[in-house]
Amino acid sequence: MRITTDQIQTQNDKTLPQHRESFDHLRLILERKNIDSQQVIDKIKNFQVAIPSWALGTGGTRFARFAGGGEPRSLKEKIDDVGMLHALNGGSGAISLHIPWDIPSDVDAVKSHAAALGLAFDAVNSNTFQDQENQGHSYKFGSLCHTDSRARRQAIDHNLEVIHYGKELGSKSLTVWLADGSSFPGQMNFRKALQRTFDALKEIYQGMPEDWKMFVEYKPYEPYFYHTVIQDWGTSHLLASQLGERAFTLVDLGHHLPNTNIEQIVATLMMQGKLGGFHFNDSKYGDDDLTVGALKPYQLFLIFNELVEGMEDPSSPNPTPAWMIDASHNLKDPLEDLLQSVEAIQLAYAQALIIDRIKLEEARETNDPAWAQEILQEAYRTDLRPLIAEARLQAGAAIKPFGAYRSLKVRDQLIKERGLKTMATGL
Amino acid sequence: MRITTDQIQTQNDKTLPQHRESFDHLRLILERKNIDSQQVIDKIKNFQVAIPSWALGTGGTRFARFAGGGEPRSLKEKIDDVGMLHALNGGSGAISLHIPWDIPSDVDAVKSHAAALGLAFDAVNSNTFQDQENQGHSYKFGSLCHTDSRARRQAIDHNLEVIHYGKELGSKSLTVWLADGSSFPGQMNFRKALQRTFDALKEIYQGMPEDWKMFVEYKPYEPYFYHTVIQDWGTSHLLASQLGERAFTLVDLGHHLPNTNIEQIVATLMMQGKLGGFHFNDSKYGDDDLTVGALKPYQLFLIFNELVEGMEDPSSPNPTPAWMIDASHNLKDPLEDLLQSVEAIQLAYAQALIIDRIKLEEARETNDPAWAQEILQEAYRTDLRPLIAEARLQAGAAIKPFGAYRSLKVRDQLIKERGLKTMATGL
Amino acid sequence: MRITTDQIQTQNDKTLPQHRESFDHLRLILERKNIDSQQVIDKIKNFQVAIPSWALGTGGTRFARFAGGGEPRSLKEKIDDVGMLHALNGGSGAISLHIPWDIPSDVDAVKSHAAALGLAFDAVNSNTFQDQENQGHSYKFGSLCHTDSRARRQAIDHNLEVIHYGKELGSKSLTVWLADGSSFPGQMNFRKALQRTFDALKEIYQGMPEDWKMFVEYKPYEPYFYHTVIQDWGTSHLLASQLGERAFTLVDLGHHLPNTNIEQIVATLMMQGKLGGFHFNDSKYGDDDLTVGALKPYQLFLIFNELVEGMEDPSSPNPTPAWMIDASHNLKDPLEDLLQSVEAIQLAYAQALIIDRIKLEEARETNDPAWAQEILQEAYRTDLRPLIAEARLQAGAAIKPFGAYRSLKVRDQLIKERGLKTMATGL
Amino acid sequence: MRITTDQIQTQNDKTLPQHRESFDHLRLILERKNIDSQQVIDKIKNFQVAIPSWALGTGGTRFARFAGGGEPRSLKEKIDDVGMLHALNGGSGAISLHIPWDIPSDVDAVKSHAAALGLAFDAVNSNTFQDQENQGHSYKFGSLCHTDSRARRQAIDHNLEVIHYGKELGSKSLTVWLADGSSFPGQMNFRKALQRTFDALKEIYQGMPEDWKMFVEYKPYEPYFYHTVIQDWGTSHLLASQLGERAFTLVDLGHHLPNTNIEQIVATLMMQGKLGGFHFNDSKYGDDDLTVGALKPYQLFLIFNELVEGMEDPSSPNPTPAWMIDASHNLKDPLEDLLQSVEAIQLAYAQALIIDRIKLEEARETNDPAWAQEILQEAYRTDLRPLIAEARLQAGAAIKPFGAYRSLKVRDQLIKERGLKTMATGL
Repeated sequence: MRITTDQIQTQNDKTLPQHRESFDHLRLILERKNIDSQQVIDKIKNFQVAIPSWALGTGGTRFARFAGGGEPRSLKEKIDDVGMLHALNGGSGAISLHIPWDIPSDVDAVKSHAAALGLAFDAVNSNTFQDQENQGHSYKFGSLCHTDSRARRQAIDHNLEVIHYGKELGSKSLTVWLADGSSFPGQMNFRKALQRTFDALKEIYQGMPEDWKMFVEYKPYEPYFYHTVIQDWGTSHLLASQLGERAFTLVDLGHHLPNTNIEQIVATLMMQGKLGGFHFNDSKYGDDDLTVGALKPYQLFLIFNELVEGMEDPSSPNPTPAWMIDASHNLKDPLEDLLQSVEAIQLAYAQALIIDRIKLEEARETNDPAWAQEILQEAYRTDLRPLIAEARLQAGAAIKPFGAYRSLKVRDQLIKERGLKTMATGL
Repeated sequence: MRITTDQIQTQNDKTLPQHRESFDHLRLILERKNIDSQQVIDKIKNFQVAIPSWALGTGGTRFARFAGGGEPRSLKEKIDDVGMLHALNGGSGAISLHIPWDIPSDVDAVKSHAAALGLAFDAVNSNTFQDQENQGHSYKFGSLCHTDSRARRQAIDHNLEVIHYGKELGSKSLTVWLADGSSFPGQMNFRKALQRTFDALKEIYQGMPEDWKMFVEYKPYEPYFYHTVIQDWGTSHLLASQLGERAFTLVDLGHHLPNTNIEQIVATLMMQGKLGGFHFNDSKYGDDDLTVGALKPYQLFLIFNELVEGMEDPSSPNPTPAWMIDASHNLKDPLEDLLQSVEAIQLAYAQALIIDRIKLEEARETNDPAWAQEILQEAYRTDLRPLIAEARLQAGAAIKPFGAYRSLKVRDQLIKERGLKTMATGL
Repeated sequence: MRITTDQIQTQNDKTLPQHRESFDHLRLILERKNIDSQQVIDKIKNFQVAIPSWALGTGGTRFARFAGGGEPRSLKEKIDDVGMLHALNGGSGAISLHIPWDIPSDVDAVKSHAAALGLAFDAVNSNTFQDQENQGHSYKFGSLCHTDSRARRQAIDHNLEVIHYGKELGSKSLTVWLADGSSFPGQMNFRKALQRTFDALKEIYQGMPEDWKMFVEYKPYEPYFYHTVIQDWGTSHLLASQLGERAFTLVDLGHHLPNTNIEQIVATLMMQGKLGGFHFNDSKYGDDDLTVGALKPYQLFLIFNELVEGMEDPSSPNPTPAWMIDASHNLKDPLEDLLQSVEAIQLAYAQALIIDRIKLEEARETNDPAWAQEILQEAYRTDLRPLIAEARLQAGAAIKPFGAYRSLKVRDQLIKERGLKTMATGL
Repeated sequence: MRITTDQIQTQNDKTLPQHRESFDHLRLILERKNIDSQQVIDKIKNFQVAIPSWALGTGGTRFARFAGGGEPRSLKEKIDDVGMLHALNGGSGAISLHIPWDIPSDVDAVKSHAAALGLAFDAVNSNTFQDQENQGHSYKFGSLCHTDSRARRQAIDHNLEVIHYGKELGSKSLTVWLADGSSFPGQMNFRKALQRTFDALKEIYQGMPEDWKMFVEYKPYEPYFYHTVIQDWGTSHLLASQLGERAFTLVDLGHHLPNTNIEQIVATLMMQGKLGGFHFNDSKYGDDDLTVGALKPYQLFLIFNELVEGMEDPSSPNPTPAWMIDASHNLKDPLEDLLQSVEAIQLAYAQALIIDRIKLEEARETNDPAWAQEILQEAYRTDLRPLIAEARLQAGAAIKPFGAYRSLKVRDQLIKERGLKTMATGL
């Protein structure tokens, strides 16, 4: 299934007059603050968030999984889904594949299919947290950190294989999320596990093409419940520093202990030139993997405040990070969830872009926290949805992607095409 | 010092044209959603948040206190300060006194002074968490829960005295915050401490006039670090239920363990008719007592969503709660902080008022979480600042209270009048 | 498979001399503190912890499940496993069944099999957090709280069916754990959901025989990540109070927000006569379901301190709670895990039994926290393993259950009997 | 006041026979496990924990301070107090001074007084989190991170002055705890604040003698409630790495977010050769600064497990860390609190020393978490109090320090000497 330009235009026609009116009012207001709306719009249009292939199906918890309908049954259909998202919001122009769930059997076909939908291939993801059928060694007790060198060998080889597939598709980076850890005090030797992990990562790092980057993810707990080998940004940064210039830390918003100041971590990593990528989602308790912006939109804005500061600073040592959504859709239609997530990301980015940074630095230099708060909230409280809509409109996408998706009854049609009881690979 | 109507009008004149324009646009947008702006405005105008007398000075931490200047030196000056806040924002028309810090020596003078500034006297607050000079028994090991009946007696008598002062001033409620607890396992007998607390509260309850309410606050920890006698809403509710119909639970936003779903507690209490009052503030880690809305504005909105649902429901068994700010201003000018807090409260209230509740219930009945989220975010993302400003304008207050406060150089003048090194009583 | 008395005796013979020596030394030390060892031993012998039928297989996380070998393939084999545990430790003389995983096809056979192994049937457990094959209505959006009355009807009927099976087997209580909740703000109406849950529980309560109890479990989050209908002890207690005299709160150690003072909740509930049951496990982050005592043995001791205070108090309004382990064994052999859990429970119970309660109350009355700590630690630091071993020895069980289990190579034999790739029903 | 050898011997005589008996039994048990008791005892005797000068008075919270009696009124009396602790437990042979609270007026007198009591001078501590009388620039908005270079200059100079005093007394290290941070989003530029802090630390580092070490402490929050410049071990490690070989991270047990795996941080830092020092205390909620071992003794044991692994490993790149207690005694007699803390530390250290590390590594290599747990718990559950007592006895200290302290009525005498209403400098 594909969403056509005509379909989108028909949807847009319904709301265009009201959109124009709202956007004109907003543009005027921004102008008075010396903000050039079109500049912001251009940045929004350039900002593309990769969709992970596993986010297109219904996920579950350890207690149950309640499947949805019309889920993609193949890599081709996953690309179709991302294509529809991108057609609707103009901001999801990349897909992030997961190996072994998405091994491309016909690389050329996959590439041309994606290209036809305007999609690039973002970071490829390895999986050493599950055992696959007929796998020689189990990852029950770890992968790159395993005490058995054969299990480590297998996990290293798997990562090298992922790089191989990525190269064929045109990816330029590898994301390594290691679940590795232990659930009981005493179970694992922390030092040896970290050393083995480092040694294995080094081999994978050396197996990457010279224009590739490695993103090292961290997480405090789950699926293990006492210790995780790469428990925090400090550990990830330690590894990335020792691995080399093209190794970076990847921040997943849900991978932090309660109350962590994540925006500060972002700032510190960018200052060191070591923020490689970002996994967006939202959470209240742990790695809840909920829709971006559904719980803590202000925190998201504060994070974008730091991201923008780093990205807009020409002297920043940090390359542009890779952007990806990493959520698990247990209750919502995954495509609707992703539309809401991208909207929240674009909104937070736009809000961060209109912060008056000159005044903000003045407030900071004069130690005036009340004024600094006024400046941030001025940006955050401005309703920038018309501006985001305008960016989409200019990109040929939908003014209201969520509304258009429902109007077009996409899910009904997907169920008709793919069936009610399909099940996408993934979590 | 007083802020005059003229001063406010002069300030308003500067921004009136732009305000009109923004408000007209907003009214139109709301109209299209079938929302009557004036109805919302009227509710905002009626919503009065009490200012606690101790929030007018600079607070501190256990490590240090960095005083500000021009702090009120007497109850009269505290009332002056609240009067200025109310003149600026039209929403701070009450003051909540703390005994023994604010014992009125001349009740009639105090009352007429407050009345002249349009201020009512909200709940009175007792203090059994500090020892006062020449106090017979120390509260080091508790007050109403103390093992020594003489200390309990003293604490009960103090609360009765607070009621006495409250009666004279026209208060209609008593807020009891008990720090009582223990810092070491084994130190206190949980059961006996709770029983003694209940017995003492009963006596205080019986000492209240028949038209008074008692608000029983809860808090998980601090100043004691192992156990607090009234540790959570469950314990407070247990006590309030057993005390009687005029005993209620008071929710302070900062008094919860990490990740608590506070809005659900609010809903449950209102459903039981037992939500008596609310202490507004914001926090990231614990009872941080920061400016309302400075950290988690979306949570504040979700809480107001529940409050509005309860308040607008004619069949709700819950009386209108008492509203109060309870924050500690360590770094900001206290008056600026309070202006920002009241603004954030009004905004969250207004956002909650424009939620399309009919559609929301539809989304809920059809188990459509994506749509429910759209409905909530539609309200939250709408920039309602012009509406709040209009409410203030209609009430004779400032369109932009924070801006007016700075333009009028209020703090400078207060320092001139009161001196640089004053220190208000309080935390 | 069964473990015979002879096998146990052979194991015991190896360590008997050293056990005698250690126990004699301990008895002497306790005597000097005026503690009658045999009285403590008798209490340990009488303390039976139920094993849930789902804890006998290997559990998983949302990311993966790494199966073990020799898992029970039927209810009969589950009973066999509990029988072996009980033979080894003399303290696991009950089994708690889960419906629909353990529907007994031949009730008499099941009963006589359990009786032959010395096992009673503890609380039965319903399951409305998963959909079963061919189920009419999905629990994706709740069960007893569902907006659709037919889903509620189905869930009520399921609970009544569970009671039916329980009656046949001789159970006397029903444990209701409701996963019901929502993952997104706005998704569910908190009040209506709680009301519907209460109404449904009332019907189930009325369907119980007159000598049955109902245990209402609470949990703050997971599997839903924004709100859980019965989120805390306060909500459970509210429901239990309104349901009637035979409704109680059930405490699961892992179902609390970070840093919760659980022992205080235990004390409050016992004081109200409303602590119905206990689910033992341990955790570091959330509902990690780890081996009891593996992470926080001192907290376990403090909880037992409260349990003992309530149980030993003849005036306590609280009935003896039902004891059950509720853990998930992802990495360890489930039977070894359960042996370690029961040992940790017995140890904590014994430590709590030797606390000098008279002195402790003296320390409390005189507000002497340092002394109170000395008294608690005196009990906790005493090595009571010989006393626990003696209790087992007197009960005909193993001095060292874990060692005996390994010596007897039980798991190897189970794998031989049942196969390597079995999979028990459960989480 | 001083405690004499005679006094201690008189106390010891009372319990000597029972001690001998218990110790003989323990020695036998350890022997059977091939543990040489005397080797462990020697290590305990060599383990000295520094007492900070500010821990000898009663601390407070932001709400109140309830003073005790007989607090030291001068540096001399503080040294007296530590001398008494050391006489009682033989394990507190060092004092850690705080500037400006403890500026020595007569260095030689102070040194000879300490030497006479067997005390060394451990790390010196600077204070830039409070304003001192007549200080030119306030630290309200930070010290080393301050936007005003004059405030930074002042803070750097203060640290250099602290080094100066430390040199005179024979200290060999400087502990820098920076409260610096912000309480509101936007208030501070994270990057600039970190950069300024680094630049200032560099200057202080260069001002240290060549045989000195610098310990950089971290803390997530408090006294600021949004951001702390050095928020976690990762930030501290980043600074320490860039500062140079003699800069290290200092771990304070209370300075972590909820549920942090501290023992893993310890392991990682030691592996990098960057664990410089340790502040012992205990906590349930935040930086509660309670008696060591009062809340989480098993965590303390797990931390010592890592410390011992690092200390016993001849190939470890980490120097022996500096040990210090950092607690705040609000409710207990500070000296009793410190006696309990040192006892808990010695116990945890001894327990970690008797872990069977060869078997533990076997269990780890074979991925046997149940066995690994048995090995750890075998060590933890052994009652090693007689061994600790024996170490004290051999060192000429008290078998039961807490009991001896009470028998000798030390506090009564201190009150007699120093008065009831003294107040030590400090928190």
